Amino acid sequence: MCRWLAYSGSPVLIEEVLYKPQHSLIDQSLHARLGVDTTNGDGFGLGWYGANAGTPAVFHSIEPAWNDRNLREVAGSVHSPLFLAHIRASTDTAVQQTNCHPFRHGRWLWVHNGLVREFPRLKRELALAVDESLYASIEGSTDSELLFYLALTFGLEDDPPGAVERMVGHVEEVGAGLGTEHPIQMTIGTTDGRSVWAFRYSSEGKSRSLYYSTDVSALRELYPDRPRLREVSDEARIIVSEPLGDLPGVWNEVPESSYGIVQEGEDELRPFRPVYSRNGGERYSHFKA
Amino acid sequence: MCRWLAYSGSPVLIEEVLYKPQHSLIDQSLHARLGVDTTNGDGFGLGWYGANAGTPAVFHSIEPAWNDRNLREVAGSVHSPLFLAHIRASTDTAVQQTNCHPFRHGRWLWVHNGLVREFPRLKRELALAVDESLYASIEGSTDSELLFYLALTFGLEDDPPGAVERMVGHVEEVGAGLGTEHPIQMTIGTTDGRSVWAFRYSSEGKSRSLYYSTDVSALRELYPDRPRLREVSDEARIIVSEPLGDLPGVWNEVPESSYGIVQEGEDELRPFRPVYSRNGGERYSHFKA
Amino acid sequence: MCRWLAYSGSPVLIEEVLYKPQHSLIDQSLHARLGVDTTNGDGFGLGWYGANAGTPAVFHSIEPAWNDRNLREVAGSVHSPLFLAHIRASTDTAVQQTNCHPFRHGRWLWVHNGLVREFPRLKRELALAVDESLYASIEGSTDSELLFYLALTFGLEDDPPGAVERMVGHVEEVGAGLGTEHPIQMTIGTTDGRSVWAFRYSSEGKSRSLYYSTDVSALRELYPDRPRLREVSDEARIIVSEPLGDLPGVWNEVPESSYGIVQEGEDELRPFRPVYSRNGGERYSHFKA
Amino acid sequence: MCRWLAYSGSPVLIEEVLYKPQHSLIDQSLHARLGVDTTNGDGFGLGWYGANAGTPAVFHSIEPAWNDRNLREVAGSVHSPLFLAHIRASTDTAVQQTNCHPFRHGRWLWVHNGLVREFPRLKRELALAVDESLYASIEGSTDSELLFYLALTFGLEDDPPGAVERMVGHVEEVGAGLGTEHPIQMTIGTTDGRSVWAFRYSSEGKSRSLYYSTDVSALRELYPDRPRLREVSDEARIIVSEPLGDLPGVWNEVPESSYGIVQEGEDELRPFRPVYSRNGGERYSHFKA
Repeated sequence: MCRWLAYSGSPVLIEEVLYKPQHSLIDQSLHARLGVDTTNGDGFGLGWYGANAGTPAVFHSIEPAWNDRNLREVAGSVHSPLFLAHIRASTDTAVQQTNCHPFRHGRWLWVHNGLVREFPRLKRELALAVDESLYASIEGSTDSELLFYLALTFGLEDDPPGAVERMVGHVEEVGAGLGTEHPIQMTIGTTDGRSVWAFRYSSEGKSRSLYYSTDVSALRELYPDRPRLREVSDEARIIVSEPLGDLPGVWNEVPESSYGIVQEGEDELRPFRPVYSRNGGERYSHFKA
Repeated sequence: MCRWLAYSGSPVLIEEVLYKPQHSLIDQSLHARLGVDTTNGDGFGLGWYGANAGTPAVFHSIEPAWNDRNLREVAGSVHSPLFLAHIRASTDTAVQQTNCHPFRHGRWLWVHNGLVREFPRLKRELALAVDESLYASIEGSTDSELLFYLALTFGLEDDPPGAVERMVGHVEEVGAGLGTEHPIQMTIGTTDGRSVWAFRYSSEGKSRSLYYSTDVSALRELYPDRPRLREVSDEARIIVSEPLGDLPGVWNEVPESSYGIVQEGEDELRPFRPVYSRNGGERYSHFKA
Repeated sequence: MCRWLAYSGSPVLIEEVLYKPQHSLIDQSLHARLGVDTTNGDGFGLGWYGANAGTPAVFHSIEPAWNDRNLREVAGSVHSPLFLAHIRASTDTAVQQTNCHPFRHGRWLWVHNGLVREFPRLKRELALAVDESLYASIEGSTDSELLFYLALTFGLEDDPPGAVERMVGHVEEVGAGLGTEHPIQMTIGTTDGRSVWAFRYSSEGKSRSLYYSTDVSALRELYPDRPRLREVSDEARIIVSEPLGDLPGVWNEVPESSYGIVQEGEDELRPFRPVYSRNGGERYSHFKA
Repeated sequence: MCRWLAYSGSPVLIEEVLYKPQHSLIDQSLHARLGVDTTNGDGFGLGWYGANAGTPAVFHSIEPAWNDRNLREVAGSVHSPLFLAHIRASTDTAVQQTNCHPFRHGRWLWVHNGLVREFPRLKRELALAVDESLYASIEGSTDSELLFYLALTFGLEDDPPGAVERMVGHVEEVGAGLGTEHPIQMTIGTTDGRSVWAFRYSSEGKSRSLYYSTDVSALRELYPDRPRLREVSDEARIIVSEPLGDLPGVWNEVPESSYGIVQEGEDELRPFRPVYSRNGGERYSHFKA
């Protein structure tokens, strides 16, 4: 089990979101409340964009987030309008920086909570489906990173929801072919520095938790006395594996088998359906896109 | 909160004691059951003696014990008749190898669970009491290591119980002088490679938990069908912050304000009383002992 | 042997100074050219100020700088008008984050290249001279950090050159008292976020190398075709243990037993003379300053 | 560039071989003399067998060997009749434990000095040739580990020299097919806990250096006064990337394109010739061996 967080809105000092809330992500590294494991101590990562989007910076560490001084320093000195953070609970793969989320490819970041079941059995066939030009960029050994490279192969940079639907359809098909029951369990966050896409899906229809924050203007009406809410821009939005606090009306569950888009203009929430190659999801050509 | 373990007996593969029990110390690094914190993920250490006592080897790491591959390799390949292991939960001092227990001085090892209250206020006066010849050997920044060097100053190598009683008396006096209520909370394990001394004490009389295993021959009678018990020598003994399993009759609590000695011949359990300088505990001379 | 660098001027992307020069500090971590050791691989640190001075951020790592990905990410995404960087070559003290420079106290940063000779013998007496209110803030075990806390004790925050002169005088006296020949060897950089002070001194009068960059407007006349020089503000200045390149006229040696101040207005270069307590350098009161 | 060492003989305290020689492997981590780079500071590894061969233990670290305290402790307390050690100088792949040599599979260990040229271009095709049952065991991202899994695929466990010759032939063919000049450069050490095989080869015929020690009984005649030589068994042998000292007559170069076997009975030195699939090196079946 892992936990992740995405922030998009007016630039904030990262620690305001990462450390200050009552039940912050850093607190969740020691005391997660939803899910099986309470400890997410097998490394963490932070990826953030500067004022002008572009390539994000990433900071990865194999030490637990709760006592990491460098994370506290970076979070306490960098302002960003869009960032993803992730705390990891590894079961089988090595605790190493290249297995820490967010993974980065060009301007894109990717975080994942969940797993590919029987990954050692499925790994090779999944890796073969990664575009040849991308294969050597895989640096770590996790299922999560491989899902990212599959999504890139299936067109993430041009059509994020479609690419993730094709990626999931492919994993379902490979799993079915090798006799793996319920091959995929996931919440996924991905961004190009402008919009954020957040997916919640699992083969068995019982997906890991995922929440998004209520519109800030609505929150201001609910809580007129909270100074922190006054400083944040109207379009600020947080997506997170589990709520950062207990304030009623703030946190909404992303429904089972659906995805949300945080973007300029109206945000959206839509159903998520895996796309299988047999019904039209033929291999997306990475180069011709 | 921390957890520690001491084993003394016929040589065993360390992993038999450290990893194999139902609720092993490594399991306690993620899921401790007694005490406030359930996670002890801020580094760990293992110190072990070879066949002929002598200087012990120590292995320290700042990563959580539960996923540390090197610890698993060392524990899976080294046999030892006497070893101490410790998993750490830091609150304020840095997560670094020099703050990992067991601390070593010559043939001696030392582990501690607990704290010196208001340590930043008391630290300087305590450090000044450390023998001049030992001061520069202090490598880390913890209260635990400072207690070790104070105990060495007060004669640990010649009279372990007396030295720890004088050390605790000194900490009580320094705390009282600076207005700190209940200055010390501790369970301590220390060994010279032949005997093990285990102390349980706190200023407030509510000390951290500490257990020792029942005599193996008694266990054999209780559980005639357990093959593992047949292989262990009669004098084998484990001392541990919390029991390694739920088998009835195996684990006995070290009473409040007392200490045990695991040694050749009969083991002993005795009351522990701090010795104050005003009633005869004058400064022990490190060199003249 | 260590190497360090200080930059003060118009805000730059840190990597422009830290990675881009021909013989950059990061290159010096593998291939230093002046001094005995060519490798400075025992950790590193970076401390930087934001636009409005205030408390600087620090990033410390125990891994070699040359392959550290997090350092590259931070240096590639943070702009700063004033920063200090340090690469470490340890001889005796532990490789741990609390032994990495720059050390920080409030708004102050401190880097040191050199050593206190026979430090284990002198350490206790030097530590006792640290102001009681500062003692517990010492986190590591190096001579360098202790020199910082001594300088703070002797008034660094109010009179940096005077405090360093008193600190050095004190070390000379302690060394003389304990029979240590040539007790101190140093180049030191320190800053409050506004000015930078750089000291070069050693008991034996053969101090480690230290250089400062020529005034940028002079450089522009020398090299009218270099675009990088056009972007940098007139008052930009770099101080560094060894030159970042071979361009003639760029690098000037800080003379033996002297110090420089990079500040608003004219920079200065002055002689450095230890101040001894016997001729007027009585203990500076940290609190009454 | 990397450096490695293999010891086979009567059981010795590992530090006797790893730390004590004049120009030891640990010294070479800071001051290598042969080859382009003088620093091998990107992690290290040690793999050792117990008295009864079986599965070896491995210890990997991402920190430089020269200051690693845990390595010193393990080497100073473990006796072994056969061990491999490796110090790493990474160029492109991540510094992480799963990229540290020796790599282990069952009872086998593997170390490599050299590279696969244009590895990112060749990686996918090479990985596809790894036996399906082995693919998911690849944990790191180096060329060295991939060569190991290819050798296992080509029958390392049954016919080590033949398997390495087929593996090299395959890499030559893949390189030729993708237009890479001189695809492979290598010295390789591998062992099953009983014999050690050491290979020296490169596409261009200018391979990295490799040495083996002279027979101990011959050395005893040469140097009758050396006590250390008296303690070592007659069949003790060291293979190493560069000599551990300057004593004349001790170190012999492994010739270009050849391999040696250290084994019970007479050791051997033979020519090494890549085996290509077109002249009989058809894919070795991992399962039917």
